[in-house]
Amino acid sequence: MRVVSGMRPTGKLHLGHYIGVIKNWKNLQDNYQCMFFVADWHALSTKYDEGLNLKELSIELIKEWIACGIDPQKATLFIQSAIKEHAELYLIFNMITPISWLERNPTYKDAMNQPEYKKKNNAGFLTYPVLQTADIVIYDADLVPIGEDQKPHLELAREIVRHFHYIYKMEIFKEPKEILTEVARLPGLDGRKMSKSYNNAIYLDETSDEIWQKVRMAKTDPARIKKTDPGHPEVCIVFDYHKAFSSEEEVKEIEEACKNGTIGCVECKKRCAKNIEKIIAPIRDKKASLQNDEILDIIKEGNKKAKSLAEKKMKEVNKVIF
Amino acid sequence: MRVVSGMRPTGKLHLGHYIGVIKNWKNLQDNYQCMFFVADWHALSTKYDEGLNLKELSIELIKEWIACGIDPQKATLFIQSAIKEHAELYLIFNMITPISWLERNPTYKDAMNQPEYKKKNNAGFLTYPVLQTADIVIYDADLVPIGEDQKPHLELAREIVRHFHYIYKMEIFKEPKEILTEVARLPGLDGRKMSKSYNNAIYLDETSDEIWQKVRMAKTDPARIKKTDPGHPEVCIVFDYHKAFSSEEEVKEIEEACKNGTIGCVECKKRCAKNIEKIIAPIRDKKASLQNDEILDIIKEGNKKAKSLAEKKMKEVNKVIF
Ligand code: SF4
Ligand code: SF4
Repeated sequence: MRVVSGMRPTGKLHLGHYIGVIKNWKNLQDNYQCMFFVADWHALSTKYDEGLNLKELSIELIKEWIACGIDPQKATLFIQSAIKEHAELYLIFNMITPISWLERNPTYKDAMNQPEYKKKNNAGFLTYPVLQTADIVIYDADLVPIGEDQKPHLELAREIVRHFHYIYKMEIFKEPKEILTEVARLPGLDGRKMSKSYNNAIYLDETSDEIWQKVRMAKTDPARIKKTDPGHPEVCIVFDYHKAFSSEEEVKEIEEACKNGTIGCVECKKRCAKNIEKIIAPIRDKKASLQNDEILDIIKEGNKKAKSLAEKKMKEVNKVIF
Repeated sequence: MRVVSGMRPTGKLHLGHYIGVIKNWKNLQDNYQCMFFVADWHALSTKYDEGLNLKELSIELIKEWIACGIDPQKATLFIQSAIKEHAELYLIFNMITPISWLERNPTYKDAMNQPEYKKKNNAGFLTYPVLQTADIVIYDADLVPIGEDQKPHLELAREIVRHFHYIYKMEIFKEPKEILTEVARLPGLDGRKMSKSYNNAIYLDETSDEIWQKVRMAKTDPARIKKTDPGHPEVCIVFDYHKAFSSEEEVKEIEEACKNGTIGCVECKKRCAKNIEKIIAPIRDKKASLQNDEILDIIKEGNKKAKSLAEKKMKEVNKVIF
């Protein structure tokens, strides 16, 4: 069974990515034939004018995956734009994909209600799910790990595949199925969505002190002023982080101590920071030990594998359409 | 100065193509560095569901070009879908091309008023001019031969190029200019638009007898019943054909004879057919003498040349965007 999944190279990974995506990928790589790719063309669809160095960001991203435990021996790691066949299949799928299918995509509709996206209402943005379809089906993916919000995209991918099969009277693609991942969404330390611009995320290469400085500033239960005030962990961001990174026992212990007013927020945050450090330390160290050359070799190898699969599939496609 | 122009492989060439495009290409190849391509991906945008054998049609089309006098020693002849870089650049241009630019394209607007196109309102149809832009600027075309109706497409190509330059602050493309070709439009033999489905066109490989059978049925001045009835050549399709294929003296002579009622329509048509035969005979013979292997070699050679130019350009592009 093959799994295909991509990530856009828009900046350094933080704990939200770790919890939301990477941990899941690590499970997948042990159980499936995985292909993980840097979606650098996708990054262009909204970030084309931000002057990002996407090449550097892409290499950095794969380095971070590996630092997190993604294993190039198990999974094929590659860069989307290195496989021109994605663009070729995207073009071909565009030819048979009604605009109306794309316009009814909820993500697109939502975006058109937001001024910053609306002004970027480009052909590439509208046809984003067509490129995603190409990314997936070019490798005969059986499964695609997605969150609830991406279900319409995968349904569209299946529709495009079925439409192609109907038009050309040949079944050459697999209809990809979803693996719904329970989205372990981690809020930013200030309670807002994690974002570089809010400076409310902890990155996977931060030092122990940097981690502490950020956790120290995290939003807690505003009702607690003195240590002895009974707290409400369910409204405390620090507690969300405990649930994500501390052991079950410790989470229980802290919950009670907070409610009973027997632990101070500073003490609680220190323990939280320590547990985060336990997760990040090996990632940070592994990342520091990885040489760029090594990563480039891994990418070369991954691109080669991906390319050969994609070429084979496009031969089939071109035989059918031409 | 480089000229780039393409033709869709949708069927055999007829006299309308010869007059409207090929004659013009023959002039161009003597004066510019020409790249002529079979636009097989473009053919998909409206013909994807017609079961055409586009591969065969593409080879056949290049064979007919050569039979007409297009010279692979002078011009580079290649097949669009063999150069994946067109798809790559198309994808990249889609990322920066506002939907609104595409929707205001008059060809698109017209098409949306025609039911047979409206039902094919696919992403590939809307983004057709983006692919055209990629086709042209990937080769640094200086000039593109177009008819008046395609002016908005070329203007859009220039807009996309300027927009790219503006976003990436690098001028890596040429803004293509048009060579306006006086469109020598030849009507079908029944006065309608030339079309395979009307059976009103003379193909470049028809025999002298087939030519005659078609000219014989052509629409003439309905006011002429007897040879001595004075005719109105300006409303006669046969006279349009004389103007396109007979010598200036003969055209003058026929005009007068028709007006004076001194030539019969059958006689007039015979002379017309003879002159068409003079054009078609060498094309037909040349076509019959061309081996498929020979054509395949020419295509291979042309694709190779085009590929190397396109690759070079895409290296520049990717350096700028990633
Ligand atoms: S003790 Fe811990 S869980 Fe309770 S409010 Fe303070 S930081 Fe939050
Ligand atoms: S004589 Fe020739 S030009 Fe005149 S009406 Fe007949 S076919 Fe036409």
